[in-house]
Amino acid sequence: METDPDAGIVYLVGSGPGDPDLLTVKATRLLEEADVILHDKLPGPKIIDSLPEDRREDVGKRAGGERTPQSAINERLVELAREGKTVVRLKGGDSFVFGRGGEEAEYLAEHGIAFEVVPAVTSAIAAPAVAGIPVTHRDHASSVSFVTGHEDPTKEESSVDWEALAATGGTIVVLMGVGRLPDYTAALLEAGMAPETPVALIERGTWPGQRVATGTLETIVGVRDEEDISPPAVTVIGYVAATRETVAAFLENEYEDEREGAEGERE
Amino acid sequence: METDPDAGIVYLVGSGPGDPDLLTVKATRLLEEADVILHDKLPGPKIIDSLPEDRREDVGKRAGGERTPQSAINERLVELAREGKTVVRLKGGDSFVFGRGGEEAEYLAEHGIAFEVVPAVTSAIAAPAVAGIPVTHRDHASSVSFVTGHEDPTKEESSVDWEALAATGGTIVVLMGVGRLPDYTAALLEAGMAPETPVALIERGTWPGQRVATGTLETIVGVRDEEDISPPAVTVIGYVAATRETVAAFLENEYEDEREGAEGERE
Repeated sequence: METDPDAGIVYLVGSGPGDPDLLTVKATRLLEEADVILHDKLPGPKIIDSLPEDRREDVGKRAGGERTPQSAINERLVELAREGKTVVRLKGGDSFVFGRGGEEAEYLAEHGIAFEVVPAVTSAIAAPAVAGIPVTHRDHASSVSFVTGHEDPTKEESSVDWEALAATGGTIVVLMGVGRLPDYTAALLEAGMAPETPVALIERGTWPGQRVATGTLETIVGVRDEEDISPPAVTVIGYVAATRETVAAFLENEYEDEREGAEGERE
Repeated sequence: METDPDAGIVYLVGSGPGDPDLLTVKATRLLEEADVILHDKLPGPKIIDSLPEDRREDVGKRAGGERTPQSAINERLVELAREGKTVVRLKGGDSFVFGRGGEEAEYLAEHGIAFEVVPAVTSAIAAPAVAGIPVTHRDHASSVSFVTGHEDPTKEESSVDWEALAATGGTIVVLMGVGRLPDYTAALLEAGMAPETPVALIERGTWPGQRVATGTLETIVGVRDEEDISPPAVTVIGYVAATRETVAAFLENEYEDEREGAEGERE
């Protein structure tokens, strides 16, 4: 298959965790230059609101409220590129981390459309980071694993191997894992992970009104319910999650409205 | 401990994988505004060369050629902040992914210095991405684990549990893993991972002259030697590594000088 010489190009661009300041320089430039930007709601309100109305297409929802199937998005990307357009496919976080960017890349290649991947800051690392939690730590975690709480239910081998993840001894970060929190915390406890293992939930990481709730593998479901933590949120499981407590009083971030104790100590 | 009201602030900033265009908007701004930038060589030549000579300190090497100990870097950060300076501690990739940012954050908090974490694009995701490899894929990988090939040899439990990582069934990404490639590919084979599992090495991902070499768990050590792949490089182990072959002919990237077949097919 040859590349269509009259076709445009598709940029698979990650928007990062949500703070427009955490877009890459390249993503910012491409958003300014693109003929069309295809996006859904995941980049978050601040980035979505900054996109020019006349050059954006929301492919997150269709009329009637149901989700646009991935196949329709793939076809639209090819269609726009064949019209000679410079297209940005904007995804929340990084396109290649549970973002279906791989499928889009394969579809574009199959249809002879040139594309470029523009990596981004992933929420899996950034949301914990701005909450004071390093996903790895020389003393506590020599590996980190990312999984998604939204598993493809049609996939034959659908279950993440929580036992193996527990056995790695490293940090586990679950994206979009609020709903299934009771299931996987139970699975990790059953796999022999210590009940006192620190766990943190970061809701809307780097969005205005970010919230953080902490507990242990044994208590975090109760904490979630009490604090009413809702999607989108990232779950961090492992000793690194306790770092927040150590550093929180000195951690500046512009996202959280209230930080217990911190303001008082500072001023 | 209270924050010193006359002290400055330390920004723990990741520089991303090396392409200055993959710096975040915020990192770019902080590099312009900082009074002092403490860095080593890991951000890569393009970013290092763009830093202003009169506001940067290379803490990667000391006179005599040995590495600056982490304790000296920690102390320097506190010293500069106590002089009222706005300090950027610039790390390659993301500070909180095998970057010792966690230790720096803890040290700053212990010494009453306010700090902020500025997350970045990690090479662990970006280097594979620009080479056409998504670290997760709906069909092949529902988790991804990051480990480092440079383990702290002084750490008591120093060994990464390769058997557990193999058992996750997800993608494994090894940072700084060129030297120890024979050790961990052998460990993964012994753990029962299929010898034909695709493996890719991405040397200097997003730097000028990026190179990619591919093979399998069984062949990759030979490929590394034949192609003379050298640090810094990222290793990707798992079925996603084969995506590169599918998409390479249509994948634009500005980093690789030669892409077999691709130019010919395009022009």
